[in-house]
Amino acid sequence: MYQIAIVIFDDFTDVDFFLMRDVLGRSQKDWTVSVLGTKPQHHSALGMAVKTDGPLDDANKADVVLFTSGYKGVPAALADEAFLSAFRLDPKRQLIGSICAGAYILQALGLLDGIQATTHPDAKAGLVKLGVDVLDKPLVVEGNIATAGGCLSSMYLTGWIAERLYDADKRREVQRQLIPAGQQA
Amino acid sequence: MYQIAIVIFDDFTDVDFFLMRDVLGRSQKDWTVSVLGTKPQHHSALGMAVKTDGPLDDANKADVVLFTSGYKGVPAALADEAFLSAFRLDPKRQLIGSICAGAYILQALGLLDGIQATTHPDAKAGLVKLGVDVLDKPLVVEGNIATAGGCLSSMYLTGWIAERLYDADKRREVQRQLIPAGQQA
Repeated sequence: MYQIAIVIFDDFTDVDFFLMRDVLGRSQKDWTVSVLGTKPQHHSALGMAVKTDGPLDDANKADVVLFTSGYKGVPAALADEAFLSAFRLDPKRQLIGSICAGAYILQALGLLDGIQATTHPDAKAGLVKLGVDVLDKPLVVEGNIATAGGCLSSMYLTGWIAERLYDADKRREVQRQLIPAGQQA
Repeated sequence: MYQIAIVIFDDFTDVDFFLMRDVLGRSQKDWTVSVLGTKPQHHSALGMAVKTDGPLDDANKADVVLFTSGYKGVPAALADEAFLSAFRLDPKRQLIGSICAGAYILQALGLLDGIQATTHPDAKAGLVKLGVDVLDKPLVVEGNIATAGGCLSSMYLTGWIAERLYDADKRREVQRQLIPAGQQA
């Protein structure tokens, strides 16, 4: 069974976490999902308390590591010494992804060196300043690293994971229930 | 300032609540959002605990009342005498909406009598059996009552609210940050 880790922190953007969590929660047989953070619980930008399932370094042994976003949350996490230093990620054996400003965390971990990426349109200029080649696309995949930009692009990111771990049928299976009525392919 | 009430119950579908909550939470100046339930907190289908801001009958004085969904949650809520009896809704002075199986609550409150509606595709047959004219559309609006079907159709439902309370610019304003990069209109 694949292990998927979702990394949160205080002031994470609600939908960036919950949409990902819900889509991945549609399967209980294909993977397990762990929510990781520096504390027993973190509060979202809208004040929702979410319990974590383990410390950040559990991400280092996961098959998939996903970083959530947060306008205030990401800069605060990056400023926290205990945050970045917990990670020993390896894109050779792990799928690694981010939504919106989560790309700043991948950048800080050196995972975007020499590759293209995307982020939230409002966060693009800052990421470009850090030397990242940022595309105006919902999802940018480079090998085992995928960045997504704009909250709803969570669908592309989780779809990519389902396809990489299994196949397109698995993607359709986990996304099917979220598609608006009358819009199923 | 408009008052928007979102009604939850135990075993609500995570994304059906959180997507709605996040989009509506993008404005703090145009409306307030209250989460209402029969208990101080309710747990989602995935086990997230969400605190409520007040009892169900607060919905009766709100400008907008939105019902979340839940495969197990809606039937349990409908079986709870204290749930349905709390509501004295009036589509003449309130905007009333539902996502997915939330349409069953509108039906039980008599709000779908003689009008068309939509629901989650998996929930359609049951609602048809109750005599509702169910369309395969993401959003069906009849006067002040709107039903949405398929989790992501939350975007249409909250967009309708922003347009009805204000205008299309308000809809674009609250939805802008959620649109995937490169897909902005």
